[in-house]
Amino acid sequence: MKAVVFSDKEGLRLDKNYTKPVPQKGEALIRVTLAGICNTDYEITKGYMGYNGILGHEFIGVVEEINDEDKSLLGKRVTAEISYGCNDPDCEWCAVKNYRHCPNRHTLGIWKKDGCFAEYVTMPLNVIFEIPDEVEDEQAVFVEPLAAACEITEQLHIQPIQKVVVLGDGKLGLTTALTLHSQGLDVTLVGKHQNKLDIAKNQGVKTQLLENTTVNNSFDVVVEATGSVSGFETSLGLVKPRGVLVLKSTIATGKELNLAPIVINEITVLGSRCGQFPPALNLLKNHRIDFKPFISKVYSVDDAIEAFEANKAKDTVKILMKF
Amino acid sequence: MKAVVFSDKEGLRLDKNYTKPVPQKGEALIRVTLAGICNTDYEITKGYMGYNGILGHEFIGVVEEINDEDKSLLGKRVTAEISYGCNDPDCEWCAVKNYRHCPNRHTLGIWKKDGCFAEYVTMPLNVIFEIPDEVEDEQAVFVEPLAAACEITEQLHIQPIQKVVVLGDGKLGLTTALTLHSQGLDVTLVGKHQNKLDIAKNQGVKTQLLENTTVNNSFDVVVEATGSVSGFETSLGLVKPRGVLVLKSTIATGKELNLAPIVINEITVLGSRCGQFPPALNLLKNHRIDFKPFISKVYSVDDAIEAFEANKAKDTVKILMKF
Repeated sequence: MKAVVFSDKEGLRLDKNYTKPVPQKGEALIRVTLAGICNTDYEITKGYMGYNGILGHEFIGVVEEINDEDKSLLGKRVTAEISYGCNDPDCEWCAVKNYRHCPNRHTLGIWKKDGCFAEYVTMPLNVIFEIPDEVEDEQAVFVEPLAAACEITEQLHIQPIQKVVVLGDGKLGLTTALTLHSQGLDVTLVGKHQNKLDIAKNQGVKTQLLENTTVNNSFDVVVEATGSVSGFETSLGLVKPRGVLVLKSTIATGKELNLAPIVINEITVLGSRCGQFPPALNLLKNHRIDFKPFISKVYSVDDAIEAFEANKAKDTVKILMKF
Repeated sequence: MKAVVFSDKEGLRLDKNYTKPVPQKGEALIRVTLAGICNTDYEITKGYMGYNGILGHEFIGVVEEINDEDKSLLGKRVTAEISYGCNDPDCEWCAVKNYRHCPNRHTLGIWKKDGCFAEYVTMPLNVIFEIPDEVEDEQAVFVEPLAAACEITEQLHIQPIQKVVVLGDGKLGLTTALTLHSQGLDVTLVGKHQNKLDIAKNQGVKTQLLENTTVNNSFDVVVEATGSVSGFETSLGLVKPRGVLVLKSTIATGKELNLAPIVINEITVLGSRCGQFPPALNLLKNHRIDFKPFISKVYSVDDAIEAFEANKAKDTVKILMKF
């Protein structure tokens, strides 16, 4: 099968003869139809996590085969959470379906598990979710980043009276701002690109160019979605004393940082990662966010290398790949 | 009067003719009797906060003069919280006596206010506290770092079932471990110096040498009290996924840090600074912690420079100065 593979030795390449995976007991074989490129994929090609294998963790597809007695998902349009756990009865994380913290987890295209940028992928049935009929493919393929945005309010109680700012107008910042807005919160998206800010503005989010933003410790909650050191420092300047800075992006390399403001202002820095899919599927089902304006271009898997190049461009929001 | 002064130009020096301060309206003049050297004082002599002036913020003394109608503290043995605010009726921080976050605050020996390493200091009456008769001078002089340790459970609810580790066996780590232990929590102190660990061990705290400690993400709450980058990294290794890393020490310089584990493990990093004095005075009054074993040596203010040198020595815990 065709697969987009990264290795330290050969870099990023399209492999046209990758071995098709075989579903193990309790797993389904999914024919991938549409996938999204995330900045984490790009970070991996620069060495993040030391991952080698098929890239990709945002996808939708159709179940073609099931190695289990329960065949109910056969032929269904599905997506899957990206981490699955050991399911040991003693695992406190698997017990609460929080597989991403299971110490023996596998994570699609990131950790010990081939990703979804391929014609076929296998995943355990307990992390596969059927996509509601109301949700088009071009919306459903955003479920993983949307779930990651929903994770913020799963971890943190934000009051409707509190002032929230999301810093960064890339796909992560846009998704986060739209999600918090859809949850009825008072959110402002701050970024450097008017054309990207407009995607959120057109759906009712308050937006502001960074150059017009006063950085004076006035927000209760700041979501850092730039992934840059300067963004982290600006976030520390935006958040009130005793406020919360949500760290939403992984940064591949060590950076020089002054942690003193965290102590002096008694800031809470909250690391926030992936989320569970049901709340995200629910938002999609109810059409609370329109992801179509995110789509910069849809590439065929045959042009995967070109798609990765396009993902790097400044004016790109989201690149999708068709299989 | 004699005063221990730091300036960028002249470094650290003992000034024997510093102008005695005059209490403004609402302030008291306090004759300092005993003071403690904190690592923040040492950091300031390396440039932290860009502070120039009399150093010191841990002290006890006797009120000699009051510029206010209420003279009730005259002649009393007192201490004072280190920050005072603007007291503007619109200041949300002063309204809740959380002066350390008032944007127009002054902080003793750290920010816009001469410190207590002098024969006399002035402070506003609303941050001065009488020391209970039950508390000896050599215990009372520890009230400020003790209040800073009490601040942790003011900010964070730690359950008695949770496992807490304090990393670092300096005075900050020792104070924090003893405080959390006195609050009935399950705390282990980890450090590199058996002689220092023993100070906590002798008062019932579980202790462990760092070299004997398994770093495998197993603690619910980790208090970082080393102030070093390696300590921060070890803390990230000690804390469980979704656990809390309390950052208790200010670090003067920018450091290279990899923030990815915070996001991947969804860690909460909680900056924690000074605390209000009443809970600390209460612990002292009830003799819940014995600070005498902390005292490495008591110097006369005349030997202040030597005292600062002694503070740097590896085997030193606490250096006090008599006035």
